[in-house]
Amino acid sequence: MNLPTPGQPPQVPVLALGDVLLVSLQGELHDGMAEQLQHDITSRIAASRVTGVVIDISGVDIVDSFLGRVLAEIASTARLLAARTVLAGMRPAVAITLVELGLTLPGLVTALDVDRALELLSQRGT
Amino acid sequence: MNLPTPGQPPQVPVLALGDVLLVSLQGELHDGMAEQLQHDITSRIAASRVTGVVIDISGVDIVDSFLGRVLAEIASTARLLAARTVLAGMRPAVAITLVELGLTLPGLVTALDVDRALELLSQRGT
Repeated sequence: MNLPTPGQPPQVPVLALGDVLLVSLQGELHDGMAEQLQHDITSRIAASRVTGVVIDISGVDIVDSFLGRVLAEIASTARLLAARTVLAGMRPAVAITLVELGLTLPGLVTALDVDRALELLSQRGT
Repeated sequence: MNLPTPGQPPQVPVLALGDVLLVSLQGELHDGMAEQLQHDITSRIAASRVTGVVIDISGVDIVDSFLGRVLAEIASTARLLAARTVLAGMRPAVAITLVELGLTLPGLVTALDVDRALELLSQRGT
């Protein structure tokens, strides 16, 4: 795995919406970014009592086994810190490719878009 | 896997009932048709915010390992797009054959007929 280069790797922005974190992935996620993102999310959950994480992947064209594993790991880590993760905005072509690769992301809850993901989190969270 | 022939392969009709898609399989499903069906269902789910898919197999005499895999893949893809799939109307003889073949379709929810499948989807879907 590549470690982040000393000159600050590009970061994935993590927004707070009330007690939910919103992460929008765009394009490709490199090794260092994935690790950084996982650290960001977990520290934010612990620091600010976040109860849900929405990962928006509508800007992602390809989900390979690496990204699939990163997403599953983020969800597992969040769950251990008592937050639920919803994966939002998966494109149909991405879903088909994932299933063809045998990556069905069993531990992840999905929603069609960010709105529905937030709705899902607010419904079950109460 | 055979690709659909240029002269339009026979298609499996996909009906919309509210926010549920109803697919009635009849007779045998060929490779090209299966692929086409999977694409149809996924694009319809994404386009029209479908929350459930009912696959009626009451007209199917034989479910072999190919069809079993296609059904499981459709269900997995639908789940990634936040829709649930229910398999309806399996004949007793088909169920016996499936179990004899060791195909227990673990990821699939089943219902006795289409009515009960719709009921199941509306109950949990709210």
